[in-house]
Amino acid sequence: MKNKAQILVKRPVGFPTKETWSLEESLIPELNSGEILIENHYISLDPAMRGWINNTRSYIPPVELNSVMRSGSVGKVIKVNGTTKFKIGDYVSGWGGVQLYSISDGEGYFKVDPNKAPIPKYLGILGMPGMTAYFGILEVGKLKKDDVVLVSGAAGAVGSIVGQIAKLKGASVIGIAGGKEKCNYLTDELGFDGAIDYKNESIQKGIKKNCPKGIDIYFDNVGGEILDDALIFLRRNARVVICGAISQYNSMEVQGPKNYLSLLVNRASMKGMVVFDYADRYQEAFENMTKWIKERKLKSNEDIYDGIDNFHQTFSRLFSGKKLGKLVLKVIDDK
Amino acid sequence: MKNKAQILVKRPVGFPTKETWSLEESLIPELNSGEILIENHYISLDPAMRGWINNTRSYIPPVELNSVMRSGSVGKVIKVNGTTKFKIGDYVSGWGGVQLYSISDGEGYFKVDPNKAPIPKYLGILGMPGMTAYFGILEVGKLKKDDVVLVSGAAGAVGSIVGQIAKLKGASVIGIAGGKEKCNYLTDELGFDGAIDYKNESIQKGIKKNCPKGIDIYFDNVGGEILDDALIFLRRNARVVICGAISQYNSMEVQGPKNYLSLLVNRASMKGMVVFDYADRYQEAFENMTKWIKERKLKSNEDIYDGIDNFHQTFSRLFSGKKLGKLVLKVIDDK
Repeated sequence: MKNKAQILVKRPVGFPTKETWSLEESLIPELNSGEILIENHYISLDPAMRGWINNTRSYIPPVELNSVMRSGSVGKVIKVNGTTKFKIGDYVSGWGGVQLYSISDGEGYFKVDPNKAPIPKYLGILGMPGMTAYFGILEVGKLKKDDVVLVSGAAGAVGSIVGQIAKLKGASVIGIAGGKEKCNYLTDELGFDGAIDYKNESIQKGIKKNCPKGIDIYFDNVGGEILDDALIFLRRNARVVICGAISQYNSMEVQGPKNYLSLLVNRASMKGMVVFDYADRYQEAFENMTKWIKERKLKSNEDIYDGIDNFHQTFSRLFSGKKLGKLVLKVIDDK
Repeated sequence: MKNKAQILVKRPVGFPTKETWSLEESLIPELNSGEILIENHYISLDPAMRGWINNTRSYIPPVELNSVMRSGSVGKVIKVNGTTKFKIGDYVSGWGGVQLYSISDGEGYFKVDPNKAPIPKYLGILGMPGMTAYFGILEVGKLKKDDVVLVSGAAGAVGSIVGQIAKLKGASVIGIAGGKEKCNYLTDELGFDGAIDYKNESIQKGIKKNCPKGIDIYFDNVGGEILDDALIFLRRNARVVICGAISQYNSMEVQGPKNYLSLLVNRASMKGMVVFDYADRYQEAFENMTKWIKERKLKSNEDIYDGIDNFHQTFSRLFSGKKLGKLVLKVIDDK
C-alpha cells in the first residue's frame, strides 16, 4: 500500500501552474503508538488554499515547500496503534492534506456520521464553508430581519449558504454569480430574491434594479470591481463582511476598493473574518444547520471531481468558476 | 453696512482655484420676525468643505452653485426682530457660511461663552473637530486602555485631539504629521509617545519602530499611501476609523487601500463616521472636554489667518499642510 501526495514544490507567482505541485509516491510508515491511519476519500478544494502557498504572514503559517499540500479532508480510519481517539471504521474529517493516506494522532480531527449526511457534505455545508457562512452572516454581518443582503460568489460553497441563511432569517437576498445557469440555480433552487450575472450584465445596474433601497449587508467573497460596485450602494450603517477576495488571489497587486469612502458617507463598516475564531461554537452552528437541512430550508451542492492526479486541474476550477457549490476531489472510493 | 460673502461659482475639478469662489458684496436685507443678524468673527476652514462642493451624494447635500460657501462660524448677535432664540450681544456658533454677516432664525446655532474659552476654540476643540475626535476615538474606535493608537493628520484639528484623548485614557499614541516642527509639537507639547514625519521618513519603518507590537486603532484622516502603510501593521481585532481622506479629496480617482485584506487576516474592522450622528451627545463630550482642558490634559492650537478676501488662499493651507491645529479665518474684529 503506497501513499500518493501532492507536494508543494514551487511557490507560484500569479496563477499556480502544474509545476507548483508534484505528485509523489511514498511508502506508508509504521504507526507510532496513539496514531491512526486515515484513508482519505474526499479532499476539500478551497480558494483560501491559494493564500496558504504564499510565503507571507497570514492567519495561519504558509504551507512549507516540499511538504504535502494542506487541505481539509474526510475519510475513514483504517488502522490504529494503541489507545487512540478514534477506532477502525470511524469516519473522520480534518486536515488530511492532498494525499491518499494521512497519519495523525487525531488532533484536529472530528468524527462524522455518514448516515446523517453524505460525507462530502462535511467538507461543505457541514464543514468549514458552512461554518464560515453561518458565523459570517450572523455574527460578523449582524444580520437583522428585513436587511437587504448582497452576496458575491453566491453559487459557491460559502455564498450559497450565506444567502439561504439570510433568507430563512427574513432578509431579502440578492446573489452575484457568473453565468445564467448559476443565477437560475440561485433563484430557482435556493430561493434567492434575485441574481446578477456578472459575466453578462452590468453589476451596478443589477444592484440598482434588485436593491432599489440599497444594501444593508454586502458579503464579499470576491473583491475587485464587484466590491467597488457594491460599496456604491451601501445604506446607512451597512456592514461589509470581508470573507475572501478570489478575484485578487492570483494578482501581483491587490486592487484596493476605491469606493471605500462610502463607509464614511454611510457610517458603514467593513470587517474581516476567519472562521477558526468561532471553533468553540461550531457545535451550535452544526446543530442549527442540520435542523435547517432536515426542514429543507437549506440546500447544498457538492461538485465532485475524481482522482488525486487531477488536483491542479480541479483546483483551477475555483478560479475559472467552472463548478457549482462546494468543489471536492474524490481520491479513494469507499469500499 | 454691507455683507461680503464667498460665493461658490464653479465646481472645481481637482484642486479648487481662485475661480471656484467669488467674493461678492450685497446689502443686508431687513430681518423678518424671529430672525437674528450675526456678525461673524471667525470662519471654520475644514477639509470636509472640499467634499461639500462636489456635486455628489454624500452625508449632506452639496453646496449649491451661486450660493454662499457653507462653513461653521462663530460670532455675535447684533440685531434681532421680535421674539428670538438669542439676544443682542450673545455669542453664537453655527453654520454661518463664509461671509461677514448671517441671518438666521437661530436653528442650528448654539450659544458660546467667551469667558470660558476664546471663541475660535468653539470652531476647534470645543466644536465639530473636537466632537469628531471624541466620538471617533471613544465610540467608533472603541478605545481601550493599553491600546496602541496610530493617528494620521495628527497635528490637525481632529488628530491632535484624538491623540490626547487616547493618551489620557491610558493608550499609547503615535502620530503621523508632515515636518519636524509638527512632530516635535506632538511629542513635546501634546505628550504623544512618538511621531512619524511622513515628509522625511519611511512611514512603514516609522510604524515598525514606534509600534513594535502593531496597531490596535488606526485613526485615519488622510487616506492614500498612509492608510495602506497602516493596514500592514494591524493587530488582531484592530479598528480602523475612517474619519477623512484629505490626500484624496482633490484626486480625480480615489486610491483604494490595496492592503484591505489585512482586515481579513487580522479580523479587523474599518468603520466610517460622521460627527452629526452624535449630536444628542455633544453636551456630554463638551463637558468632558472642558474638564480635561481645565485639568491641562487637553491642549489645542488655533491657526488664525485674517480677512475674508484671503479665503481661497487660507483654505489651501488645509491641503498643503501649512498650518498647525485648527485652521480659522478671522473676518470681523470683535469690537
